[in-house]
Amino acid sequence: VEDGDKVTGESLDALLAELTRVNNSRERASLLFQWLIRPVPAKAFFSETWEKKPVFVPRKNPDYYKGLFSTAEFDRILREENVQYGVNLDITSYVNGKRETHNPPGRALPFTVWDFYESGCSVRLLNPQAFCSTVWNVLSILQEQFGSMAGANVYLTPPGTQGFAPHYDDIEAFVVQLEGKKHWRVYNPRSEEEVLPVLSSPNFDQAEIGKPILDVVLEAGDLLYFPRGFIHQGNCLPDAHSLHITISSYQKNSWGDLLQKVIPAALGVAMEEDVAFRRGLPLDYLTYMGVQNSDKEDPRRAKFLSRIESLMKKLPNYAPVDAAVDQKAKEVLHDCLPPVLTPNELATSVQGAATRWADGTVKDVGVLITTKTQIKIIRAMCARLCSDGDAVHICYTTDNSRVYHKEELQSFEIQTEHTDAVEFLIHSYPKFVTVESLPCDSVQDKIALAELLFEKGIIHTAEPLKSPPTVHSH
Amino acid sequence: VEDGDKVTGESLDALLAELTRVNNSRERASLLFQWLIRPVPAKAFFSETWEKKPVFVPRKNPDYYKGLFSTAEFDRILREENVQYGVNLDITSYVNGKRETHNPPGRALPFTVWDFYESGCSVRLLNPQAFCSTVWNVLSILQEQFGSMAGANVYLTPPGTQGFAPHYDDIEAFVVQLEGKKHWRVYNPRSEEEVLPVLSSPNFDQAEIGKPILDVVLEAGDLLYFPRGFIHQGNCLPDAHSLHITISSYQKNSWGDLLQKVIPAALGVAMEEDVAFRRGLPLDYLTYMGVQNSDKEDPRRAKFLSRIESLMKKLPNYAPVDAAVDQKAKEVLHDCLPPVLTPNELATSVQGAATRWADGTVKDVGVLITTKTQIKIIRAMCARLCSDGDAVHICYTTDNSRVYHKEELQSFEIQTEHTDAVEFLIHSYPKFVTVESLPCDSVQDKIALAELLFEKGIIHTAEPLKSPPTVHSH
Amino acid sequence: VEDGDKVTGESLDALLAELTRVNNSRERASLLFQWLIRPVPAKAFFSETWEKKPVFVPRKNPDYYKGLFSTAEFDRILREENVQYGVNLDITSYVNGKRETHNPPGRALPFTVWDFYESGCSVRLLNPQAFCSTVWNVLSILQEQFGSMAGANVYLTPPGTQGFAPHYDDIEAFVVQLEGKKHWRVYNPRSEEEVLPVLSSPNFDQAEIGKPILDVVLEAGDLLYFPRGFIHQGNCLPDAHSLHITISSYQKNSWGDLLQKVIPAALGVAMEEDVAFRRGLPLDYLTYMGVQNSDKEDPRRAKFLSRIESLMKKLPNYAPVDAAVDQKAKEVLHDCLPPVLTPNELATSVQGAATRWADGTVKDVGVLITTKTQIKIIRAMCARLCSDGDAVHICYTTDNSRVYHKEELQSFEIQTEHTDAVEFLIHSYPKFVTVESLPCDSVQDKIALAELLFEKGIIHTAEPLKSPPTVHSH
Amino acid sequence: VEDGDKVTGESLDALLAELTRVNNSRERASLLFQWLIRPVPAKAFFSETWEKKPVFVPRKNPDYYKGLFSTAEFDRILREENVQYGVNLDITSYVNGKRETHNPPGRALPFTVWDFYESGCSVRLLNPQAFCSTVWNVLSILQEQFGSMAGANVYLTPPGTQGFAPHYDDIEAFVVQLEGKKHWRVYNPRSEEEVLPVLSSPNFDQAEIGKPILDVVLEAGDLLYFPRGFIHQGNCLPDAHSLHITISSYQKNSWGDLLQKVIPAALGVAMEEDVAFRRGLPLDYLTYMGVQNSDKEDPRRAKFLSRIESLMKKLPNYAPVDAAVDQKAKEVLHDCLPPVLTPNELATSVQGAATRWADGTVKDVGVLITTKTQIKIIRAMCARLCSDGDAVHICYTTDNSRVYHKEELQSFEIQTEHTDAVEFLIHSYPKFVTVESLPCDSVQDKIALAELLFEKGIIHTAEPLKSPPTVHSH
Repeated sequence: VEDGDKVTGESLDALLAELTRVNNSRERASLLFQWLIRPVPAKAFFSETWEKKPVFVPRKNPDYYKGLFSTAEFDRILREENVQYGVNLDITSYVNGKRETHNPPGRALPFTVWDFYESGCSVRLLNPQAFCSTVWNVLSILQEQFGSMAGANVYLTPPGTQGFAPHYDDIEAFVVQLEGKKHWRVYNPRSEEEVLPVLSSPNFDQAEIGKPILDVVLEAGDLLYFPRGFIHQGNCLPDAHSLHITISSYQKNSWGDLLQKVIPAALGVAMEEDVAFRRGLPLDYLTYMGVQNSDKEDPRRAKFLSRIESLMKKLPNYAPVDAAVDQKAKEVLHDCLPPVLTPNELATSVQGAATRWADGTVKDVGVLITTKTQIKIIRAMCARLCSDGDAVHICYTTDNSRVYHKEELQSFEIQTEHTDAVEFLIHSYPKFVTVESLPCDSVQDKIALAELLFEKGIIHTAEPLKSPPTVHSH
Repeated sequence: VEDGDKVTGESLDALLAELTRVNNSRERASLLFQWLIRPVPAKAFFSETWEKKPVFVPRKNPDYYKGLFSTAEFDRILREENVQYGVNLDITSYVNGKRETHNPPGRALPFTVWDFYESGCSVRLLNPQAFCSTVWNVLSILQEQFGSMAGANVYLTPPGTQGFAPHYDDIEAFVVQLEGKKHWRVYNPRSEEEVLPVLSSPNFDQAEIGKPILDVVLEAGDLLYFPRGFIHQGNCLPDAHSLHITISSYQKNSWGDLLQKVIPAALGVAMEEDVAFRRGLPLDYLTYMGVQNSDKEDPRRAKFLSRIESLMKKLPNYAPVDAAVDQKAKEVLHDCLPPVLTPNELATSVQGAATRWADGTVKDVGVLITTKTQIKIIRAMCARLCSDGDAVHICYTTDNSRVYHKEELQSFEIQTEHTDAVEFLIHSYPKFVTVESLPCDSVQDKIALAELLFEKGIIHTAEPLKSPPTVHSH
Repeated sequence: VEDGDKVTGESLDALLAELTRVNNSRERASLLFQWLIRPVPAKAFFSETWEKKPVFVPRKNPDYYKGLFSTAEFDRILREENVQYGVNLDITSYVNGKRETHNPPGRALPFTVWDFYESGCSVRLLNPQAFCSTVWNVLSILQEQFGSMAGANVYLTPPGTQGFAPHYDDIEAFVVQLEGKKHWRVYNPRSEEEVLPVLSSPNFDQAEIGKPILDVVLEAGDLLYFPRGFIHQGNCLPDAHSLHITISSYQKNSWGDLLQKVIPAALGVAMEEDVAFRRGLPLDYLTYMGVQNSDKEDPRRAKFLSRIESLMKKLPNYAPVDAAVDQKAKEVLHDCLPPVLTPNELATSVQGAATRWADGTVKDVGVLITTKTQIKIIRAMCARLCSDGDAVHICYTTDNSRVYHKEELQSFEIQTEHTDAVEFLIHSYPKFVTVESLPCDSVQDKIALAELLFEKGIIHTAEPLKSPPTVHSH
Repeated sequence: VEDGDKVTGESLDALLAELTRVNNSRERASLLFQWLIRPVPAKAFFSETWEKKPVFVPRKNPDYYKGLFSTAEFDRILREENVQYGVNLDITSYVNGKRETHNPPGRALPFTVWDFYESGCSVRLLNPQAFCSTVWNVLSILQEQFGSMAGANVYLTPPGTQGFAPHYDDIEAFVVQLEGKKHWRVYNPRSEEEVLPVLSSPNFDQAEIGKPILDVVLEAGDLLYFPRGFIHQGNCLPDAHSLHITISSYQKNSWGDLLQKVIPAALGVAMEEDVAFRRGLPLDYLTYMGVQNSDKEDPRRAKFLSRIESLMKKLPNYAPVDAAVDQKAKEVLHDCLPPVLTPNELATSVQGAATRWADGTVKDVGVLITTKTQIKIIRAMCARLCSDGDAVHICYTTDNSRVYHKEELQSFEIQTEHTDAVEFLIHSYPKFVTVESLPCDSVQDKIALAELLFEKGIIHTAEPLKSPPTVHSH
């Protein structure tokens, strides 16, 4: 499946067009990711490079990423969209070791933004996916490769300047050079504690960061990847401006982040199920435990610590890992972009259904979902069954906003008798199944469930829905 | 100025095009309002009808309001915009005297909306100005006629149905019939207390409202106006659906609403300036005043009441009316729609300034505002000086959102030495004035103020700004 | 009634004992206040001095106020009560024109308080009524003289020091010298605006306050009164410490404070009843009103201002003065101290009812209130009927705390059929009336109401209640 | 130490007097606890009964607990203290299987409380330690036996009635019969999950609870103990009322409660120190983990679960147990009652220091703490060093309130150079040590620390402090 040869778009536009014919969103993601890092094979990348070390991919092909984003598109966005200083866009500079932000209040229009640029400031556009459909499309596809939100920022830097101080981030970064060129230096994490760090660093002085392990000039079409924790800085050479987009993922997506869900839940279960966790503490433990007693030689300390250890060691037995993964999954689904539908998906889903107003009346109302209708979920990752104790809910991304967390995660309760059918649907992906094949008790149930999922935009049909044979209702 | 003949657009589109050539936004407002109520003369309307009684304007011209809104536009909005049930759109019915709302959660797509419609429900689209540019344009012009926000809702009703129970509203209503026809009945306020009421009514039973004073059928191109407090109900005849837009204004815009700002401020000033307000109450007033003593015959009561009355009668002397009007004005400016710029306004304002990215670099940066540049505020009502004690601020509507109160009212402080110049600019409207003519202390001040107002979108120039003669900066 | 000769207590203790035999709490208040300012006649004081000018009452009788408070009592309080620095007590100094506060955190015990004192700091005990029963008793009596809360602070100053900078307060102040002596200087308000001011002043420099109009030395037994707004400062002479208590009243108790309740209510009524207040503002008022137009010569301004004035002049017609007084009264009742019951009041009220546990069982339970029982409210000001729209409530002070606002004001709803009876009871004060005489519909109602009021501590009976003739219940 | 013979008070009063001569508060606690459960030996009790099973201790000595509490004391409290229905006192009944609460609003005076009692209601007084000094003293001593807050409620029940439905509690309960007698039935936990439960149960029906394992009549002087989770109910026989006090402890004091502090802290440390916790989750884990995949046979599931388990098993290595115990200890100290000082403790601590006002001046100010002064902390459990990251604080109970959580836990920062000295002091308990012996850098430091701890009431001295030789300061 991960055969980069299958999809050989001469350009991003062509590639994205080809991808609309790939039925499995995970395969689409894999192909698009392969394009991003080509010629590095994805498999090798994930086993040898990802989370381990930086890699520089020069291409000598300035058009490789063409169509993804451009300064012309940037100018259009400033003109047509409500871009706010400090919210969507930052004006920055790094001169003589001093990093500054220059955002005025209010809307960022070309008149002022380009004036800042001309005076040597860098411009960072946050979350361009909210303004640019191609970036939205690319990121919404890639997030299924990562199983985690894919984000982006765009950086425009005038010739001969630098906009940011050296620092490291808390995300895996793919620096995609779009226009011009930029000189990049990448440095090793400074200590074991800063390998794959939980939080981004402050700005560093040049004296704090040692020598670069990578010192390259990216030109349009080139790629630079580095894991979180690797310090980096980029500056423009005197002869060219630079425009790049940084695609990022894996923020707060570590085993520890998952354990923050697993462990308190495990302790809750253990306290319910195992009386050893409910027994009282020793009457006198405060007299030999605690920081003020930590230097005491007291055999009770060892016994106490050993009891704590043995209880902690029992915890995995009570860990509700799947439920904790669902808690994490709900956060991931909330973070994710809504899918960009292909024309065919649009024609076969609620968003593009034929039902419409025309000639003074409504047309194609009451279209029929029948037992023969073939359905599938619209993306592998667009919906998920999540159980929180009693009720089972289906969470879904199709009503998410392009603006990060602008909407709450949408979900609705699934009746117990429908959970098997929803699970069947999700596991059948990417195959279409007939409504008839849903494991529900009755035909009415099957159709009701299919209609519900269709109306929420979670499923689409193999063929556009047809309206029933006309027997004039009015 | 209110000469309806000057502007005789064959259609709304033509009228709006002609209005772009009217330099004064108040005049534009007046002409557009005249078109709305034609052939009733505006002057007569405001002296005889406004806030007094309903009026029906039949036209026998189904295309009169063409272009303002249509069900086809409605269908487009549902398809392309994120319309949410319960937030932007309501599904309602009124059957056998029972009024119901049927909103499901989530996005309102044609697939479900038209299904509700087909089953006999009415559809109300709230604030169509957020989705439809023509409605936005019309309302943003009309608000300068009313000196108060102009709002709108759209109502689509299937043949043979009624969507709402009889009720009265708290706004002046212009019912503009766009498609089909609708049977309307209007009733007098039920009592003196319900004349020009402060709040809307609940739904009434048919038995509570008496006999209609107006019983008409609106056809496309007709208009019906009624003041707040007049009960009304509309239903579709069996043979036609109805689409109308209700344009509204004057919500909470009464003398009493202004007095709610004036009077507490007046008391504050009185307590500062007049010791009579600071003197202590009588030692024993609690023994003869209050509800439990209201039936007492005690000469001290009369004396106490007379003292209260005399203090209240002194209050007008301390009333800071202009400051209170400014408080009210700030609310009005916050309520208002941002202006829709004409092509010429766009070319001469910050929003459409020539500064841009082209051919790998920025163009027309640092355009010159000089002492000779001619400027004016972009709308009569787009900006206002407001003083709250020490500082003077300029409040402005150009950064408002099309979505009601989505943004805070924008404002910034004006240095004392610039207030005269801003006042001069505002009072010069609709005339252009040179930057030189601004009453500031220095040329630098004049240009700095003009640049600031230009960057905020408050002023535009008589001619598009030109970039300075090129002496390469980098 | 205000005959100081009737009550001639040789000491405060004797006076308070005599006052327990005065049946009317207002008369008690009047007699105690007369004692406070003797030999100035109260009537003359309130007509010539109160809120007008300071007065110094020297007495050459160091024991005149004996028993009210003492430093020995202060020492007891520090020892036995939980006095907290910064909450109940402040340590201050004023040296070389610099005013400082030296409160450490935590409880104020004699060990540290007297150390501060010995090093030259002044000590202020806030609200001594919470700790000292005599002060509580005196203030709870005096508040009925003022019809407003009476408060107090105690000040102890070491010889040769001053604890506070010159300033003025927002209350009428009675400085009662208890021990030692203190040099006081009082200055006129600095301007008309500072006569009877709404708020206390900041600390003044000596240069800001002019020359004193009163320069005296208070010795134990002397009194100094000055109205709010009169600047004052006191310092100890080298040869003696000073202890004084300042009794205060009339904070926020001016006509203006009452008008803050009256006027918004009046506008609310006017908007409901008078359509003139509901009519819309002129379409164009924003173009000629407001600060930016205040210099305009426009005949519409005069017309607008005249309309505002005429509406304001109508407001007194709609002013619900009694209801507003009740709003103010509720605040006063909430501020007030609960009454200190005399032994006789205790024996005849719920607080001291004979019902008790003795010898392994309850005694005197189910005591009888009959139609013949004679009742009266326990203080003139302890309860009040207040109406807020629909329901009528009785508010009462008997559950207030000695600590200011520690409890919410207590109240309960009075059924409509009982309001006349409560009003009758309140107006009958200080006479006892029989339960039979209450204007209720039935005997049951009369007794139920009397029982309710008795249980809340609002009324007491002429004789201690007797238990019913014993027919053993168990 | 746990020798009940050493202390053989004929009565509680005598015992408490004897305990004032025991220098170690832990020994006091042990002796008082032994008295509580005599003749059961404490050691045997804690090894065989505590948290395991109920025990009934009949004594045939109605005066055994005399002086602890009585209905006469109850009556006094109602009369003299502000006891509020619903806050401090509940009126309850259990008739025909129906449990009801009858609290009116407001203050609970004997007049109404005894009326409820006479009509067959039970009366529960919550936290009598806030009103009764003996209960406060007893509980404040016992809490050092439990290393956890000791609480209490008092229950008064009329003859022939029952006040509560069968239920179990979340605390270890010592039912101390004070007057009359009561019939008690105790039942086993209904299931393994209800053994030592985390939360109290709802009220049970008689049918839900099985057969009692204990069915006894407590008479005055008897004791009944049962662990949390044991269902119980008590009712009065027709011939006698009952008064008992339930002394409780060990609420939320289990190993699991401590682990709730340990485990999140351990995960935090692990994420900082061990990169294995910071590595990213597998790209595809959402496709095989989570409830919707829990039935999947996928080898990746086992691998994933095994990784979770191995990480969890590493957690004990990172568990900051002492710091977590300190977090728990801070809660315990906040829960605890302040100590009741003995006369000797009072005379040698800040609370009873000789510093005072007498004869018009302050006496014994500036008493000397010298290097020779002998000091000790006033209770074993009254203070504790707690470290939260950077700073070390001392937390202490001496400023706690008798009312549960009325005050925040008091604490102050200890300078690093003083922590050893504080630890030395705490560990020296119950021995006095000289100020000189404190391990501080300088004599000034030693004295400054001692003064600070003395002023906070944390330490007392072997002898009452003496004032310095008088050299008149003023």
